[in-house]
Amino acid sequence: EVMLTSERYRVQRLPFSRLSDRDVAFFEGIMPGRVITNPEELKPFNVDWLKSVRGCSKLMLKPQTTAEVSQVLRYCHERNLAVNPQGGNTGLVGGSVPVFDEIILSTVLMNRIISFDKVSGILVCQAGCVLEKLNEYLEEQGFIMPLDLGAKGSCHIGGNVATNAGGLRLLRYGSLRGTVLGLEVVLADGSALDCLASLRKDNTGYDLKQLFIGSEGTLGVITAVSILCPQKPKAVNLAFLGCQSFAKVLETFTTCRAMLGEVLSAYEFMDEKCMELVEKHLKLSSPVAGSPFYVLIETSGSSSTHDEEKLNNFLEQAMTSGLVTDGTVATDDKKIKASHCFLFLRERITEALTHDGYVYKYDISLPVGKLYDLVTDTRARLGHNAKNVVGYGHLGDGNLHLNITADSYSHSLLDAIEPFVYEWTARYHGSISAEHGLGFKKKQFIQYSKPSEAVLLMQRFKAMLDPKGILNPYKMLPSGS
Amino acid sequence: EVMLTSERYRVQRLPFSRLSDRDVAFFEGIMPGRVITNPEELKPFNVDWLKSVRGCSKLMLKPQTTAEVSQVLRYCHERNLAVNPQGGNTGLVGGSVPVFDEIILSTVLMNRIISFDKVSGILVCQAGCVLEKLNEYLEEQGFIMPLDLGAKGSCHIGGNVATNAGGLRLLRYGSLRGTVLGLEVVLADGSALDCLASLRKDNTGYDLKQLFIGSEGTLGVITAVSILCPQKPKAVNLAFLGCQSFAKVLETFTTCRAMLGEVLSAYEFMDEKCMELVEKHLKLSSPVAGSPFYVLIETSGSSSTHDEEKLNNFLEQAMTSGLVTDGTVATDDKKIKASHCFLFLRERITEALTHDGYVYKYDISLPVGKLYDLVTDTRARLGHNAKNVVGYGHLGDGNLHLNITADSYSHSLLDAIEPFVYEWTARYHGSISAEHGLGFKKKQFIQYSKPSEAVLLMQRFKAMLDPKGILNPYKMLPSGS
Repeated sequence: EVMLTSERYRVQRLPFSRLSDRDVAFFEGIMPGRVITNPEELKPFNVDWLKSVRGCSKLMLKPQTTAEVSQVLRYCHERNLAVNPQGGNTGLVGGSVPVFDEIILSTVLMNRIISFDKVSGILVCQAGCVLEKLNEYLEEQGFIMPLDLGAKGSCHIGGNVATNAGGLRLLRYGSLRGTVLGLEVVLADGSALDCLASLRKDNTGYDLKQLFIGSEGTLGVITAVSILCPQKPKAVNLAFLGCQSFAKVLETFTTCRAMLGEVLSAYEFMDEKCMELVEKHLKLSSPVAGSPFYVLIETSGSSSTHDEEKLNNFLEQAMTSGLVTDGTVATDDKKIKASHCFLFLRERITEALTHDGYVYKYDISLPVGKLYDLVTDTRARLGHNAKNVVGYGHLGDGNLHLNITADSYSHSLLDAIEPFVYEWTARYHGSISAEHGLGFKKKQFIQYSKPSEAVLLMQRFKAMLDPKGILNPYKMLPSGS
Repeated sequence: EVMLTSERYRVQRLPFSRLSDRDVAFFEGIMPGRVITNPEELKPFNVDWLKSVRGCSKLMLKPQTTAEVSQVLRYCHERNLAVNPQGGNTGLVGGSVPVFDEIILSTVLMNRIISFDKVSGILVCQAGCVLEKLNEYLEEQGFIMPLDLGAKGSCHIGGNVATNAGGLRLLRYGSLRGTVLGLEVVLADGSALDCLASLRKDNTGYDLKQLFIGSEGTLGVITAVSILCPQKPKAVNLAFLGCQSFAKVLETFTTCRAMLGEVLSAYEFMDEKCMELVEKHLKLSSPVAGSPFYVLIETSGSSSTHDEEKLNNFLEQAMTSGLVTDGTVATDDKKIKASHCFLFLRERITEALTHDGYVYKYDISLPVGKLYDLVTDTRARLGHNAKNVVGYGHLGDGNLHLNITADSYSHSLLDAIEPFVYEWTARYHGSISAEHGLGFKKKQFIQYSKPSEAVLLMQRFKAMLDPKGILNPYKMLPSGS
């Protein structure tokens, strides 16, 4: 059983109103049958995916339209009721569940595709569309979503945008700050802000939507998204390689970027500990064994002959120069399907870790050369106090996922890890949250990556857009300042 | 002689303080020898590149450091002196010059490259670096800037970011919202905001820098930029084609995008009127003649053999299916240099237009299918009142540059064009400024592309960050509301 967040973290409830029967009746009036009060039904929405934090919300609302979201927020704003916007509840920093009794505002029924234009590749849809479903829909039309991540089967596009999700395709298609073209957002007072443009270029005034991308539900509720989708690549190739050191992983990356150029679409690395855990807990076996580091390379292009040639040239070079000691490649569609497990392996590391015990998760940006030193240093520091210390991530983006497992949660182990990891990261001007966001669990550490003037300015934006602080309280910005 | 902006547009000076000798003495104390008060020296900085608007500033300051910019703004804020931040003064909407007597704060001496990391491709530099110089510096290291535009020889990177410049490479490398990784900004009260991170991913708090990208100097002065630079492509190919109709231009684009895929780096179109003007005023001759429309295609990739093969396959297809009636290609480096004139032709249309008379410029985003109808409709509407009505632009981005020339400026012609063009654009949910921004000349038209709630919110941001309104007043946001 997951301990209540308020108990574990000793946080105080802010003086929001308490939910009354009249409130519930009001919501029933707006959206009959889509108002959940049954404690059993609410349970999974009060606990995060990692089972690391738990709230005690007594109400979940499932609007279908932007107008309904407006009505709900207008009412909550007037009544001073706190609200926790929730998508697929796949967040990793406790941002997607209530801390206390906030009303859960779920986008689960806002799953309509509004339009897709095949000439421009621009998709417009409601915020609750599941990422994988969108991708399937697009693939039928010869396009793909510009982002892909392990949680794709349940995460909502609205949540992806609210957390500025990165994922596996960022190296190729860039961040959501470039691909999201428009947003529709409902503000804390219930007013709707229509910035749902479907244009690649628009320089008319400040780009307000950017403020909501990555705001983790604290400035407004995203209700619809307009996003630029790339064409589905005609050829996708995968290579899974073994390297004898992290230095070789880096050199392989530089070589690979130069030789694969525009067809390189992912460069992921993982250490042997990751592989061991995936094999042990998920019974998946690695296609290449016996190396301290593994690299997954994906190419996506418009000509399979050209791409295979580029990949083969690169591999030959990497093997003969000793960068890579072992490797396997999947180059045609059938083989890819069969060996999709390379990517599958990479995607399921998070899951394997949860089977290993309690997981302390860190999602760090660093200069690439420094990336793995943090894992080595943390492992040395924790010694036998940790069960496993593993590192993997999006090397091409300078993004390390550092994970530490233990049989159960312990204050003393946490104290050994934090602020050590944050201080280490700050020393190299890294980010203490590359893609997961700050949510509830990291908000007190923002100063390791942002100067105090920046944090103050963020707090002024928050106060301006949500003066009562009802939207996802206790999240993202540090309390008590 | 360019008429004073205040006279032409009948705009009122706001009650800012007037510059005194004591003010000038104060600035001389901070930056001796970099305080310009000589009216002759000031002249070119009071007039925009198009010679369409003119201010009457009596002072230009040339800081070298962020600390100096801070000191200047702190003083101006206290004294209630208005400030016009200026980069290369290449803006096209009157945003880069004073309207009245605002102090010109030039970034011309802030031209230091701070760092470049060859592994990550991240460049950090001061705001006054000239785009072309940065590109030359990067090319020596095997990289390029992610943006390229006609004004590259004089525009400053700070100005590019402040106006969210688009340009020729946007199709391939995306917008500055994705490639700019960090900014250093001095706010209206002189406080410096350090968001100069050099990380591809950083989700710690709201992305404050986004608010300054495209804010046209109204929210803060950008003093330094961190930007992600792509590798220099090993192979660049150009094709210049003639099409018999705009429908064929569109079909050629779809075919080309599918067949060239990841190597396509630019798809520009221009109508025959553009070509006529370039030939007439600049004595440049077109490599292909006799078509109503021309298309310029650029590919950039890592293998010249592969790219040439892709380009040849596409051309064969385009010719045999009758999409393209004539064309010429430059595929190796020597030929590219010689026939760089294709690109050169495209880049110099703006210049040719200024030789044709007074230019009414419109920079519109529209759904691509509708793009050229606006030119046809405008031409029909204006008849003989206009000298020339031409259309060209970044088709791949849905961006049309509509230009109308006349022997001299006339109120009645302007009334025939505006709000017609804006209403037409709004009808198809386009943007009235795709990349040029609003500056002084377009600010009253923002409502054609943004709902009033959005404009109100922008005004609240402005009031919060610059309560006295001293930064680039009379620009971007509509007055009188």
